[in-house]
Amino acid sequence: MSQLFTIKNSDKNTSARAGILHTDHGDISTPCFIPVGTYGAVKTQSSEEIAQLPSSVLLSNTYHLYLRPGTEVIKKAGGLHSFMNWQGAILTDSGGFQIFSLEGYRKVTDDGVTFRSHLDGSEHHFTPEKIVDIQRIIGSDFMMMLDVCPPGDADHETWIDALNTTTKWAKRGMKHFIETEPIYGHRQTLIPVIQGGTDKKLRKQSSEELCELEADAYAIGGLAVGEPKDEMLKTVEWMDEFLPKDKPRYLMGVGTPADLVESVSRGVDMFDCVMPTRNARNGQLFTFDGKINIRNAKFKTDFSPIDKNGFSPMSEIYTKAYLHQLFKTEEILGYRIATQHNLRFYIYLMNSMQKEIQNGNFKTWAKDFLAGYSNS
Amino acid sequence: MSQLFTIKNSDKNTSARAGILHTDHGDISTPCFIPVGTYGAVKTQSSEEIAQLPSSVLLSNTYHLYLRPGTEVIKKAGGLHSFMNWQGAILTDSGGFQIFSLEGYRKVTDDGVTFRSHLDGSEHHFTPEKIVDIQRIIGSDFMMMLDVCPPGDADHETWIDALNTTTKWAKRGMKHFIETEPIYGHRQTLIPVIQGGTDKKLRKQSSEELCELEADAYAIGGLAVGEPKDEMLKTVEWMDEFLPKDKPRYLMGVGTPADLVESVSRGVDMFDCVMPTRNARNGQLFTFDGKINIRNAKFKTDFSPIDKNGFSPMSEIYTKAYLHQLFKTEEILGYRIATQHNLRFYIYLMNSMQKEIQNGNFKTWAKDFLAGYSNS
Repeated sequence: MSQLFTIKNSDKNTSARAGILHTDHGDISTPCFIPVGTYGAVKTQSSEEIAQLPSSVLLSNTYHLYLRPGTEVIKKAGGLHSFMNWQGAILTDSGGFQIFSLEGYRKVTDDGVTFRSHLDGSEHHFTPEKIVDIQRIIGSDFMMMLDVCPPGDADHETWIDALNTTTKWAKRGMKHFIETEPIYGHRQTLIPVIQGGTDKKLRKQSSEELCELEADAYAIGGLAVGEPKDEMLKTVEWMDEFLPKDKPRYLMGVGTPADLVESVSRGVDMFDCVMPTRNARNGQLFTFDGKINIRNAKFKTDFSPIDKNGFSPMSEIYTKAYLHQLFKTEEILGYRIATQHNLRFYIYLMNSMQKEIQNGNFKTWAKDFLAGYSNS
Repeated sequence: MSQLFTIKNSDKNTSARAGILHTDHGDISTPCFIPVGTYGAVKTQSSEEIAQLPSSVLLSNTYHLYLRPGTEVIKKAGGLHSFMNWQGAILTDSGGFQIFSLEGYRKVTDDGVTFRSHLDGSEHHFTPEKIVDIQRIIGSDFMMMLDVCPPGDADHETWIDALNTTTKWAKRGMKHFIETEPIYGHRQTLIPVIQGGTDKKLRKQSSEELCELEADAYAIGGLAVGEPKDEMLKTVEWMDEFLPKDKPRYLMGVGTPADLVESVSRGVDMFDCVMPTRNARNGQLFTFDGKINIRNAKFKTDFSPIDKNGFSPMSEIYTKAYLHQLFKTEEILGYRIATQHNLRFYIYLMNSMQKEIQNGNFKTWAKDFLAGYSNS
């Protein structure tokens, strides 16, 4: 089987790297941001629009797809790619994070996790093996292992428990993954999730245990769950030390534009976050001068384009005043324009980083960006 | 000034006609359906997508635009075309219908109508002259006169009052229209609204009084407000008799696909209706076999395209099962796909009628369509 990840350029001044993820659904240039399509659709956007961002990968969620439409429908559709008419790659989150963050009943044992559906209260049981099976049916190019993700305010004891269970589950998950085959013929990669809170020793232990599995990629979990920003970045820095250099690193659920730049400089290759899409629906737009909220009264008569930088066609042809009106009247078109703008901003940011790493200018560029960009 | 309306073909067997409305924002082939964009946006769709339906005209609403964003913003934007980045023609409803159908305080005098905003309860006063002024600022190609539109269950006395006030207001509106000039340089046409309920004598009287104004187009108001379908069609038939043959007739707020075919055969040239857009957001799709509701459980595993007829790209590439999932998970993409489908169905239907009238085959085609199409 061909190699999953090729590093093209490693920055001399930071841990940043530019590379390519090779999938049977096309190549993905890294560092990359993965748009989130929880239920098999990136909110407000069509598959074609995601391809045109451009993005060659999107994220969906195992837990949510398992509940709706269910594995039977996905299997009959021939997998999620076919179901949602998406030609690019798909990464599916296991749903562990959802099970541990949604309100309601859940019980973790060594075997797995029992929980109630947030939709109808029905009881379900996930094991590391079952999560692999479901993602085989979904047909995701990148499958995530079932992990235990403690909340941001969890204590040390909880981190240790989460780490230990995550390791046990990862071993079982990897075994089951090796013993099973893709259903639709294309390659699938199973990614273990490093836990350990913001404790260096625990992060080291989790990395060592999971690296024994010789997975093709590693995810950094349990961050961006409420911990202080500097602790998050410090932890990402440790991960750079503990994880193999030649394998892609995926920082789950991160983050702001500044977080992305800071984490790329600490050696992260893949990101996903609901921020660009969720904030868009609240009227918040990311720009190179920082965030603006289009609902603000000052935009009522601002007839300048939403953005002149040319990375979003809709933001070039529509004015801030018009977008303000669309939000005031709760028109869906407003959510579409804002979502496309934010996603294109994120993709443009990743493309800029790829280019600057290739040019050997990443450190200066990152410093300038972080100085100019208001992260508030 | 060049002629507004050219009739290209008059059907020999019915009152149907195919023609062209000439506006400074392009030609519009008739009979035409006008997509509704109440607040300056057709719900879920971009201006570009409306142009690609294809439609060269859309409708917006004077009352709603007056309240939000207000005439000051529209004027600063250089009119509604510029504000919403729409190159085609615009027809604006006066808002009379909204004032008379929305719940809340309103008082009609000879001078005009006083009402409270449905948004904040603030009091406003519309006169026939003011409605012309607002539409001058909006810059609509087709401006509607302020009329009194009684509800479907109104009595004869109410119809007479509505008719008399509508005539008085139309005279004042036309006088003011003639005394004022377009603000943005393009031609505007003011359209009076015939009232008179479903009473032949009143419809005749209203037509005679308003035809004295020698307007360039006439609207048929006060229908599709709850009266029986056969009375509506009978009234449309009378209107064909009472209105000048050489001027375009616009049947306001109508209707179902069958209503459109029936009314075209009775000499109507222009239609608008929220049905394709509103029903789409409830999951109801118009097809050539009748209506379907995509929320229905039977579509959960129906992997056939939403529509194979090729008139809607999104309906060709996405399956019914996927659209079902989007509606079940309340994804905005679902509303977009359904809206585009329904609007394209309506436009395709109008284009079919234009072609059949030109071919001299309209009557047979209409009979076949109505026999095959379930209007339930």
